Amino acid sequence: MQHIHTYIQEHKDRFINELLELLKIPSISADSAYEKDVIKTADVIKKSLEAAGCDAVEICLTPGYPIVYGEKIVDPSLPTVLVYGHYDVQPPDPIDLWDSPPFEPVIKKTEIHPEGAIFARGSCDDKGQMYMHVKALELMTETDQLPCNVKFMIEGEEEVGSKSLSWFVENNQEKLANDVILISDTGMIAKDVPSITTGLRGLSYVEVEVTGPNRDLHSGLYGGAVANPINVLTKMIASLHDENNHITIPGFYDKVENLSDSEREQMAKAPFSLEAYKKALDINAVYGEKGYSTNERNSIRPTLDVNGIWGGYTGEGAKTVIASKAYAKISMRLVPNQDWEEITTLFKNHFESIAPDGVTIKVTPHHGGQGYVTPIDSLGYQAASSAYQDSFGKTPIPQRSGGSIPIVSLFEKELKSKTILMGFGLDSDAIHSPNEHFGVWNYLKGIETIPLFYKYFTELSKNK
Amino acid sequence: MQHIHTYIQEHKDRFINELLELLKIPSISADSAYEKDVIKTADVIKKSLEAAGCDAVEICLTPGYPIVYGEKIVDPSLPTVLVYGHYDVQPPDPIDLWDSPPFEPVIKKTEIHPEGAIFARGSCDDKGQMYMHVKALELMTETDQLPCNVKFMIEGEEEVGSKSLSWFVENNQEKLANDVILISDTGMIAKDVPSITTGLRGLSYVEVEVTGPNRDLHSGLYGGAVANPINVLTKMIASLHDENNHITIPGFYDKVENLSDSEREQMAKAPFSLEAYKKALDINAVYGEKGYSTNERNSIRPTLDVNGIWGGYTGEGAKTVIASKAYAKISMRLVPNQDWEEITTLFKNHFESIAPDGVTIKVTPHHGGQGYVTPIDSLGYQAASSAYQDSFGKTPIPQRSGGSIPIVSLFEKELKSKTILMGFGLDSDAIHSPNEHFGVWNYLKGIETIPLFYKYFTELSKNK
Repeated sequence: MQHIHTYIQEHKDRFINELLELLKIPSISADSAYEKDVIKTADVIKKSLEAAGCDAVEICLTPGYPIVYGEKIVDPSLPTVLVYGHYDVQPPDPIDLWDSPPFEPVIKKTEIHPEGAIFARGSCDDKGQMYMHVKALELMTETDQLPCNVKFMIEGEEEVGSKSLSWFVENNQEKLANDVILISDTGMIAKDVPSITTGLRGLSYVEVEVTGPNRDLHSGLYGGAVANPINVLTKMIASLHDENNHITIPGFYDKVENLSDSEREQMAKAPFSLEAYKKALDINAVYGEKGYSTNERNSIRPTLDVNGIWGGYTGEGAKTVIASKAYAKISMRLVPNQDWEEITTLFKNHFESIAPDGVTIKVTPHHGGQGYVTPIDSLGYQAASSAYQDSFGKTPIPQRSGGSIPIVSLFEKELKSKTILMGFGLDSDAIHSPNEHFGVWNYLKGIETIPLFYKYFTELSKNK
Repeated sequence: MQHIHTYIQEHKDRFINELLELLKIPSISADSAYEKDVIKTADVIKKSLEAAGCDAVEICLTPGYPIVYGEKIVDPSLPTVLVYGHYDVQPPDPIDLWDSPPFEPVIKKTEIHPEGAIFARGSCDDKGQMYMHVKALELMTETDQLPCNVKFMIEGEEEVGSKSLSWFVENNQEKLANDVILISDTGMIAKDVPSITTGLRGLSYVEVEVTGPNRDLHSGLYGGAVANPINVLTKMIASLHDENNHITIPGFYDKVENLSDSEREQMAKAPFSLEAYKKALDINAVYGEKGYSTNERNSIRPTLDVNGIWGGYTGEGAKTVIASKAYAKISMRLVPNQDWEEITTLFKNHFESIAPDGVTIKVTPHHGGQGYVTPIDSLGYQAASSAYQDSFGKTPIPQRSGGSIPIVSLFEKELKSKTILMGFGLDSDAIHSPNEHFGVWNYLKGIETIPLFYKYFTELSKNK
């Protein structure tokens, strides 16, 4: 489709500049201090969808942040693609580790991105990848080659659990009716190794609080005589993994899907260099569950990680205190068949049960979601595969991701359609980290590949 | 000595108001943001010593915060008492747990202090107890009953390790020459149970840093595949105690003094209610080293406590991140014969040795000090005991404290004299905690008891 290349070449500078403007708004959904910015971002998305050719665009109010909905119905008899993405971003801290301010996007060349990469919070996750779809729609409408109907649903709470989206989807099944859901919020193996994500992990995110004495105490007068909430918390967290790094919560593995040897052999064929992996992270060894490879540990196996811990005196110098309270944020990545609410309950009951006398425990569930697997024989997967073959000249590799998009399993349940995860980011793009970036090449490649998906999905739908 | 009672009755309001003014200055030595306030406090102490009758008062500059020195030499042939105290205070955080601002002192009645207690950071530790000595000197000079020579040495770095004081003492042995050192920086068992502290614990305070990957990572994409510095830190800290709460650092107990059964029986006679202790702290059980009582655990046994821990995302909401680094501040309370520098080395070597592959460890010693024991047959102890008998009408109980005054063992080494610890605070005064306070009754009782110590110490010295 020569049109695509030509249009992208003619408009790529504007495509990039529009994204840079979007990235300047700190739409941090986890921090209420940025509420105005999150809402402002929704308005910008609304305008961009209208400019791209959507007919009916609306800001849908929810109990939380608004959802931007837009659609372009060419012909009700044609298939409909529902595009999902999110306009909120992760908090940028630790802020001092950024080489440039997280909300002042800059384009810099890197080893992996000689054409330049856009450095900013949200550049890859997910503003950049979401905006590829907006520009792909513009391309298709402007060049008069939109082959089917399209609906957009862009939310602002993905980084904090998509609570409002669940409510919205459950209450708008008809409005959101579609034949396939298309999402770019994942990655691919490498620029020369296109891949389609066929599996996502579920998530259970909890916060724990350990309370000991009713006030901070002098560690000299009380040290050794009362339970120190921080020492207790470290003991409790440490006990959640055994010496083989298996998680010790009773029942945690009961429903874990065990892949066959042949499936594991298939996975092992994906190009992966342990040395390059360690070098990129500057670590002398990997670490994880005994009996599984690195790629298995971060995709087909459930995990438990502390995402944050705090208590006592953390300022400059020394304070000889025994804190009254200690806290941790703990998340568990789950695999298909593990139910996140059941796992959250198992965690809560177990964590409370291992507390020693002398402390009280509070476990507060933050949010969660189910895992998901896309069958590679589905129409959507076939269409995506063909699209990649055209744009990359290679058959994409099906890949399980360790990440979570909790909403995907809800889509299937409520909307009865499959989700296709066409991700164009790279693991090295540092999403959720300081210096998050997104390759300009990847951004434009996404805009090129997406219209091809529409084309093949419409064709395959006719022939089915 | 009727003079004492009369003078205190006549001047007690001023004694209290002067202390309130002193408590308004936030002399937090651990936080460089308060440098000006710490230095300002030294000036206030200088003026107060001059007003109390000291002849030669000077602000002695040091590599750190200044030391206020003053003396009143009545007759070189008479014995000399060296008074030590500190004008710096602990940081007040967690600030939000204070019922009134930490540096806006207020007097409130409490169950234990029906005569009222002064609520402010430093009210008991140590501005209030240090200032008793200033006022006691004023009383003795104004009523013309100072029986011997006195020297004051008030420092501003006690809460951060007294580094400059060590340097000052080592370089001023002649200036500081004395027959006994008198300190009020400890507590007593109860208002109706006077006690003299005969033992102090040593201290080793370190900060540890665990570094994993070279940047924060997305816990979905990397979770379970790389060492999470926070999980690793919790495992390492947890391993420092065994199931009996013995410390597992090799060699840690080698030099620990083991008290005889009779000594432990003596200790057990001190009035103590475990129920009242638990009620005061609002805990359902005590916790500590197997085989020892609560009073033994916090006095004659060494301990290891985490005083602060931090890493990852600690803000509002959720962030699915694996932190690059995790930190903890850890202090060990030591008993006589344990050398703090040796213990610090044992900790460092052990902590580094238990680090798993995939992380690097940094251990930074903050400060420390040796433990100390005062013989109860010393002149100083006898004089103090007589003083308490006059002012309290009871023989004080010798008591081992769990706290540390690292400088005391250095005094004995450098100045060749014994230290007498006459503390008038109560465990419930919440030193190092929010709502620190000091009973007005205790404050005035200290001012009453101190001159009696001078009297008896001078008499006993003549008869020896």
